[in-house]
Amino acid sequence: MSHKADSGKSYHLKCTGDALSTADAHSKPNDLTLFGSCFCPFVQRVWVALEEFGIDYQVHEVDPYKKPPELLEVSPKGLVPGLKFNNTTPSKSLNESTVILEYLEDLANRDLGKSLLPPTSDLYGRALVRLQADHVNRNLVPAFYKYLQAQDIDKQIEGVKEFLSSIEGLVQLFERAEKESDSKVGLWHAGNSLSLADVVAGPWLFRATNVLKHYRGFTLPEGDKFRVYLDRLVNYPAFKRTCSTEELYLESYERYAYNRPNTSQVANAINLGRALP
Amino acid sequence: MSHKADSGKSYHLKCTGDALSTADAHSKPNDLTLFGSCFCPFVQRVWVALEEFGIDYQVHEVDPYKKPPELLEVSPKGLVPGLKFNNTTPSKSLNESTVILEYLEDLANRDLGKSLLPPTSDLYGRALVRLQADHVNRNLVPAFYKYLQAQDIDKQIEGVKEFLSSIEGLVQLFERAEKESDSKVGLWHAGNSLSLADVVAGPWLFRATNVLKHYRGFTLPEGDKFRVYLDRLVNYPAFKRTCSTEELYLESYERYAYNRPNTSQVANAINLGRALP
Repeated sequence: MSHKADSGKSYHLKCTGDALSTADAHSKPNDLTLFGSCFCPFVQRVWVALEEFGIDYQVHEVDPYKKPPELLEVSPKGLVPGLKFNNTTPSKSLNESTVILEYLEDLANRDLGKSLLPPTSDLYGRALVRLQADHVNRNLVPAFYKYLQAQDIDKQIEGVKEFLSSIEGLVQLFERAEKESDSKVGLWHAGNSLSLADVVAGPWLFRATNVLKHYRGFTLPEGDKFRVYLDRLVNYPAFKRTCSTEELYLESYERYAYNRPNTSQVANAINLGRALP
Repeated sequence: MSHKADSGKSYHLKCTGDALSTADAHSKPNDLTLFGSCFCPFVQRVWVALEEFGIDYQVHEVDPYKKPPELLEVSPKGLVPGLKFNNTTPSKSLNESTVILEYLEDLANRDLGKSLLPPTSDLYGRALVRLQADHVNRNLVPAFYKYLQAQDIDKQIEGVKEFLSSIEGLVQLFERAEKESDSKVGLWHAGNSLSLADVVAGPWLFRATNVLKHYRGFTLPEGDKFRVYLDRLVNYPAFKRTCSTEELYLESYERYAYNRPNTSQVANAINLGRALP
């Protein structure tokens, strides 16, 4: 579907735009170091949560494909994000974005009285948000890569269908929570703050508006309820502060869009039809 | 590796042994209904947690491959487990074992002062247990099915290696938590109660001791630290109460062991090399 040719652009190593300002404001040594890469959506999840909760940290940008030794210490598979705790000897660390998010949720809840979930007075509402996040992890995220890496037109059509169907599944879960739970959490509702599901889905939905739009012509209809939600999400302050300029994403994802060999562990897993690492 | 022939046995529809006694003790209408199938390990996770926390419930056994309408109401993909709340109009329900476990953890924590995780005074310890559970979901569970469904000897050798490697990864995470966290939770330590990781891994580790042993000759060396852990796990009261007799598992898993076509959504995903549903 794309008539552009692979121009051989490489991924970026340093944030730009709003994300650069945020990284600059978090460049000093801190008890907490976020190991990240500017284009990585798994990293962005953690970054958004740190910003939303107002937990202080230092950003340390690494090249995740070179896997420097300090990254391997923090994240055994060499995957970003990694979170390093510098105030302990020996130093401690966590990896896996979903595990780090649960850690930050626990921390914010205990020490700051903040949360990405409904209150414990609405346990069912909390479970419905977790069901949304689970759907994103199992369906929306793999569908994004499958669509982006699809080269021939049949696969791209299959890809867009699957990606749209994963969005539809998320909308159903948002609407179910709206109907069945008293807690109106998350950006599905105007005037709210982020939910765990928003944080977990946000980075890929954002990349749908630039990377998938550019390389696959993907758009959502104006005025559509999901489109309104998406606009709200990408403009939400704690989210926006972690976003680089469009050029960074377009160039960093060219490798995926032309499905170059050995683009990443994630890209390889998608090509083999395997679960994501 | 197996010289036995497929005898065409079908899966069971009703618990036996300890699990039958437990089901009989939970056969009366209750505010909470667990939709389950006697051989399903995802169901067993939820059942073990209910037993461990002492939360009351009714067991409703369904045939997950026939997908009766009352199951589809509770779990849209027709997958067990499903948890139905009968004290609300219209009735509410949850599916996905990991989401239900988080719900039960929340409930037990709030109303009973119980937990499968370290206390909030040790947030890092909590994250390490979540990291173990994440490893089980992403590695150990798919490796179990890949090994069991492997038909030719090369694939079976690859299967046993991958399954052992996933166990080794779990051991490393247990030992890491032992070293880095003050909370000694979970059955890796003698005299303890269940952790979230034990509950999440238990059903497949248990089936390794019967199904994988019978169909693939799988054993762990006597005296090995993991073997001691496994013995402790399968004999732990809340776990044991959800176990049927060996015959039930051997017969119910014959379909997987001979990789019969359309054994289940899980089996199909493994055959296609896809992520589990």
